[in-house]
Amino acid sequence: MAVVHQSCVGYGAEPFASLVADYPGDDVYPSGDFRTEWGPIFHRGRLDGSARVLVLGQDPATHEAISRRILVGEAGQRVQGLLAKVGVDTAYVMVNVYLYSVFGQAAGSRHAKDAHIADYRHRWLDALLVGTGVTAVVALGDLAATAYRMWAKTQPDVAATLHLAAIRHPTYAEGFARASGKPLAETTAALLTNWNEHLGDLAAHVTPEGPTDLTPYAASWGPTDLAPIPEIDLPAGAPAWWRDVDAWATRTGADTQTKRATISVVVPKGARTWPAL
Amino acid sequence: MAVVHQSCVGYGAEPFASLVADYPGDDVYPSGDFRTEWGPIFHRGRLDGSARVLVLGQDPATHEAISRRILVGEAGQRVQGLLAKVGVDTAYVMVNVYLYSVFGQAAGSRHAKDAHIADYRHRWLDALLVGTGVTAVVALGDLAATAYRMWAKTQPDVAATLHLAAIRHPTYAEGFARASGKPLAETTAALLTNWNEHLGDLAAHVTPEGPTDLTPYAASWGPTDLAPIPEIDLPAGAPAWWRDVDAWATRTGADTQTKRATISVVVPKGARTWPAL
Repeated sequence: MAVVHQSCVGYGAEPFASLVADYPGDDVYPSGDFRTEWGPIFHRGRLDGSARVLVLGQDPATHEAISRRILVGEAGQRVQGLLAKVGVDTAYVMVNVYLYSVFGQAAGSRHAKDAHIADYRHRWLDALLVGTGVTAVVALGDLAATAYRMWAKTQPDVAATLHLAAIRHPTYAEGFARASGKPLAETTAALLTNWNEHLGDLAAHVTPEGPTDLTPYAASWGPTDLAPIPEIDLPAGAPAWWRDVDAWATRTGADTQTKRATISVVVPKGARTWPAL
Repeated sequence: MAVVHQSCVGYGAEPFASLVADYPGDDVYPSGDFRTEWGPIFHRGRLDGSARVLVLGQDPATHEAISRRILVGEAGQRVQGLLAKVGVDTAYVMVNVYLYSVFGQAAGSRHAKDAHIADYRHRWLDALLVGTGVTAVVALGDLAATAYRMWAKTQPDVAATLHLAAIRHPTYAEGFARASGKPLAETTAALLTNWNEHLGDLAAHVTPEGPTDLTPYAASWGPTDLAPIPEIDLPAGAPAWWRDVDAWATRTGADTQTKRATISVVVPKGARTWPAL
């Protein structure tokens, strides 16, 4: 019992208690375009005012529907690595453009300007950016940049004090390679070039918690470019492999209907610590 | 956005913050006998002092590994129905004998008296029973009754003020029918007879929150004998079907190794609210 575990305390304190009490449902997020059946997934990171960076992601993916915190999969670990470069290990908070996972390629763009979706998102951004210690916002991809700019118009004085790093989404390389037929190596290099372009400015606008390492990314992911998700970001008792880079949740099913209904959770091989069966 | 959701605030307040920080791992719970790889699952219900009944269950099952709260499956809904009969809708708290799911039939009994497992469990029972408003303990099955009596010896003065309803486990009927070859109808009738024997005494030792209904159970489960899990018992954003009586989590896999590693989460048919695919 020498191990002392950390965990996310969740949403008991205001304004978060109120925010998680009246989240929009499928009247605002149409269930044809969003996987509302898996419930909203709100955030990851510090809600106690200690965040220095806000990361704005897009929408929760498969792993997040189980862990109930956003950006815990590979995309999240890439972002975690970027934050580590600017000396931020836990002093961040992350929210998404959408509370629910987008269903279908086009749905994400289709609702980029929905007023009711924005209203609720703005309440979170107000809570996290107005009168807080956050000095920089990292927007992951175009939808996040658009969402941030919509909010910035509602709070121009606050936004004027914040640095925006509107970078490519951490899984841009995979998505663009699939869509364009270009080699993944090429799209990965483009992603990392983009991140390198923003690294210095981001570092200049964040007070680091720990050592920084502004060595640019190479043309492909290096062994230390991904950083693990800290234990303190997940709810109490969450298995350690929920924070691993090894994938552990997949949508499975022989047809579209079953696949939408199913998430298969599989303990990664490296975490199968039990005696041989 | 007219819907106001309730949710469990979790473990931010003491003594629970400390309890979830230093839970025992597989040095105390051997991974041959417990599914430690899914993490500990601590409780369900009120941690704010408003509980009037403590339910002591056995170990978390499949659904609980995902919802991260105990007794949410069919067993939990049967208990919820029992509590409703004595007028308790949300004023309860539930913990298990074991933090981790038992692996294999015999493992549960084998560790019934383990000192280190009991030490940690006693800290929870102290937190929930010493100087609180709980007046009755419902122990589900023999392991729970044994665990309660072990604790009672450490706190005899407090235990003397508490009513113990040591009832059969809510899934006793299914387990005993499988093990003995007796018809399920017969073992179900035996379970419900046992619960009926304890109903009056339990009601006499609990101040109800709402109306009571001490009509005895019939020989089989009636339509109102199971009660849904209240929304306030699950973490913020949890899908409503996580509280349904329809099963939604199963261990799948062609061999024992894969089956131990896998939980398949499937939205029940009644909760597939999306447009036809």
